[in-house]
Amino acid sequence: MLIALDTHLNKPLYVQIRDQIRERILSGALPVGERLEPSRELAKQLGVHRTTVSNAYADLEAEGLIEGSVGRGTFVAPYAATLRQPAPVRRRPASKFHWDSLFAPDQEDDSLGRLMASAQEPGVISLAVTHASSALIPMDLVRRATEAVLRREGSKLLEYGSTGGYPPLKQYLQARLRRDGITVEADELLITNGCQQSLDLLRRVLVGPYDSVACENPTYPGLWQVFDVPGVRLIGIPVGPEGMDLDYLEATLEQNKVKLILVNPNFHNPTGRSMPLAARQRLLALAARFQVPVAEDDIYGGLRYAGQECPPLKALDTTGLAIYMNSFSKIGFPGFRVGWMAGSRRAIERLRIAKQRADLHTNILGQAVLEEFCRRGWLEKLIRKTRKVYAHKLAVLRHAAEQTFPPEVRVNYPEGGMAAWVELPADLDASELLGKARERRVVFAPARFFYFQNPQHNAFRLCFTSVSDEQLDRAVRILGDLLRTEIRRGRTARKAVSVSSAVALV
Amino acid sequence: MLIALDTHLNKPLYVQIRDQIRERILSGALPVGERLEPSRELAKQLGVHRTTVSNAYADLEAEGLIEGSVGRGTFVAPYAATLRQPAPVRRRPASKFHWDSLFAPDQEDDSLGRLMASAQEPGVISLAVTHASSALIPMDLVRRATEAVLRREGSKLLEYGSTGGYPPLKQYLQARLRRDGITVEADELLITNGCQQSLDLLRRVLVGPYDSVACENPTYPGLWQVFDVPGVRLIGIPVGPEGMDLDYLEATLEQNKVKLILVNPNFHNPTGRSMPLAARQRLLALAARFQVPVAEDDIYGGLRYAGQECPPLKALDTTGLAIYMNSFSKIGFPGFRVGWMAGSRRAIERLRIAKQRADLHTNILGQAVLEEFCRRGWLEKLIRKTRKVYAHKLAVLRHAAEQTFPPEVRVNYPEGGMAAWVELPADLDASELLGKARERRVVFAPARFFYFQNPQHNAFRLCFTSVSDEQLDRAVRILGDLLRTEIRRGRTARKAVSVSSAVALV
Repeated sequence: MLIALDTHLNKPLYVQIRDQIRERILSGALPVGERLEPSRELAKQLGVHRTTVSNAYADLEAEGLIEGSVGRGTFVAPYAATLRQPAPVRRRPASKFHWDSLFAPDQEDDSLGRLMASAQEPGVISLAVTHASSALIPMDLVRRATEAVLRREGSKLLEYGSTGGYPPLKQYLQARLRRDGITVEADELLITNGCQQSLDLLRRVLVGPYDSVACENPTYPGLWQVFDVPGVRLIGIPVGPEGMDLDYLEATLEQNKVKLILVNPNFHNPTGRSMPLAARQRLLALAARFQVPVAEDDIYGGLRYAGQECPPLKALDTTGLAIYMNSFSKIGFPGFRVGWMAGSRRAIERLRIAKQRADLHTNILGQAVLEEFCRRGWLEKLIRKTRKVYAHKLAVLRHAAEQTFPPEVRVNYPEGGMAAWVELPADLDASELLGKARERRVVFAPARFFYFQNPQHNAFRLCFTSVSDEQLDRAVRILGDLLRTEIRRGRTARKAVSVSSAVALV
Repeated sequence: MLIALDTHLNKPLYVQIRDQIRERILSGALPVGERLEPSRELAKQLGVHRTTVSNAYADLEAEGLIEGSVGRGTFVAPYAATLRQPAPVRRRPASKFHWDSLFAPDQEDDSLGRLMASAQEPGVISLAVTHASSALIPMDLVRRATEAVLRREGSKLLEYGSTGGYPPLKQYLQARLRRDGITVEADELLITNGCQQSLDLLRRVLVGPYDSVACENPTYPGLWQVFDVPGVRLIGIPVGPEGMDLDYLEATLEQNKVKLILVNPNFHNPTGRSMPLAARQRLLALAARFQVPVAEDDIYGGLRYAGQECPPLKALDTTGLAIYMNSFSKIGFPGFRVGWMAGSRRAIERLRIAKQRADLHTNILGQAVLEEFCRRGWLEKLIRKTRKVYAHKLAVLRHAAEQTFPPEVRVNYPEGGMAAWVELPADLDASELLGKARERRVVFAPARFFYFQNPQHNAFRLCFTSVSDEQLDRAVRILGDLLRTEIRRGRTARKAVSVSSAVALV
């Protein structure tokens, strides 16, 4: 077979071989039933390693273009012929269905996806998203945990599992929750695909059309996207130095039939504020008085660098109204999509049924690997190490900001979590600043991104966890530089930006 | 330390050690800061292997009760003390919140979960659920694929991934779909957590309150549980020898504003019927005439044992209205929770946004392991082997049924899939038969379980894939025995059973 290989091409040799054979099969130059040269011979002809040809053949086999026959060789497969016929789907019809006629325009917003993507632009220092530092993950231990569970559990990892969760992982989480003062039985605990799904399950179970939900404003954008459902009203509660403004919440509960309160009491995203013990107790008292379930997202709770640990709402709750949510995503396993919810037996039962209808159960392999990783004590070690590293990064951010940010700019350095919150003078717009920062290859998340009502323009969030100390220092100094220039210019005229065009800017 | 081990107890030694030490820590007998004996010494005292003690210590460390200090030893950890205080959550309050006040009673049904659980009862031959035969799974290859991706991808497997899916898996699926005549670009393909989630995403994107959806009746119970949402009307289309009754569908489309048609054209669950080519073309013509999207669930499509392959609706569609769904669950990877949807670019874009709001993305590790497993050609081999084994099991079922079922009983032996459909004389009730079969340690799924409207009582589904040939033969003969007895009795009075009590029986 005549195959031309170009070692200067930025294309692996096996890909070149595969693509040229595929082309010949699809053009009919190699007809069905034609025997291909054995990989050893073709490799010799082309002067490449035999594995290179084998890899090309393996891909073509996976595509169904060729097939092997033991003792006879490798042949062009019959269905290669079907691909040569003009496929019916390729005929472009006169009247294509207009899918847009089915969708409401407001379902379209994908700003969360775009923010997540912006973190991956090459050459850019991104302080935009709360991603864990992958440098901290002990991949050798993840590999060992995976090998151990594959050996121990075998094909059980592949079978349908329990909707409630992989029992050994639930046992581990029960012990972990107990340490935080939360004592739950197995049926008061549900494994989910992370806090995003936990929020979605709460919506499914508790919130119908024409219902109201109260949550912090600003908040995590994934939250309000869950409740962006026709008829559901999300009521924003402002965030002060002690987290959710409880006077405002109380007035809201008095005037509205609220079905669910959502709160992020530790290192609130995006402001970094935490609720002190007294505020947590008052929130629970309000929930009890108005008989409204209150669900806390504790996703950053394990990442405390300063100050006193404060019990979760669920540990303080005596009414059964509190629901606790957490996940493995912020300590370094977001790709595994494993989180959990703890609550009263009856609430968890309903959430479990909703979970079953949503996707039957969470993937078992990920749960089993995490359980093994945790049970061996490796998660605790990872948390301890992560706290140290992030505390240092926060100090790097603080040092650079204190040296370079002008005095008009206030920074909330949180006691934990993954981000600091920067407040600008009222006449400065964080989105405009982002435009200038982007030119200097630094990105962050402007405040407006986190508001679903009454957007603030003069603030932004700086995540400090996923970049090196040196990048962090450089990025903060660039921002300091920009901030000094902007403030020096004494700009007072700020263009009014409508909410919708603002979101589109992110 | 005084620890009493009982080797006659059905409790591993390390568990006995762990539990006794835990008890002592929680009672205060071992106070915070107390040093535990080194595992080597304790093992010698107790006459057990050192690993036994290490395992006990590892668990206690994971629970947070003890902690190690390099070079110093192992000590009772400070937070053990916090567990000794009466936890606030343990105080039982006077007024517990009544969660039931929040839920509508009709949200409660968990029959799918119970059917799945019934498959696991010990000592019972279950022909109740469509589970793959785990004996066929080459666990050594799954292990090799897992090791390969962990080596190659490293910590990327742990990071946030793309909502659309893991790109190499999408590439593989594009090639696989091409073989079935479906040519899609990457953005016309979405990875989901399996067909259950695909159905749920369709509901989220296409179906609002007061909308109608048409689907086969009977059907997969997970389907109608997805659409069991206030205000949504599910219209059941009867199933005949050629699958969905298209005359009935046409009349339904004329008289109702249907927003979505759901269909299972290959080896329909539960009846095993397949739609011939002409029926598929007519269904597409109806969808085009009424401008209604039509989503096909092809989850059993790869498992054909007889007859001619028939192109999926998506391959025949020229309007863009067809959406294709499939997953890895029925070939042996249900625990991985990975499936896919293919459709027009605009539809997939909306479904992707809905997926992002539901749980951000599908777990990466499972996707990567499956891609590796597929790319190496192992999935194709598994499918070929599975087809052979299941075809044989279907023959075993047929042989035993033909020998033992009375002539009044009709069996639909399908051309593929995982189940046969058994129709009884009108006066026999499959649920009553199930009661008697259970006494003889055989279970199956009565027809009524699959009807969301107008339940039939005189039919049941027999899954033949997850039991050994010998068990299958025995179970079918037991059923034949029962059927002969029932029919001989000439029972004509059949108790009317209401739908709700019937579902509760499953």
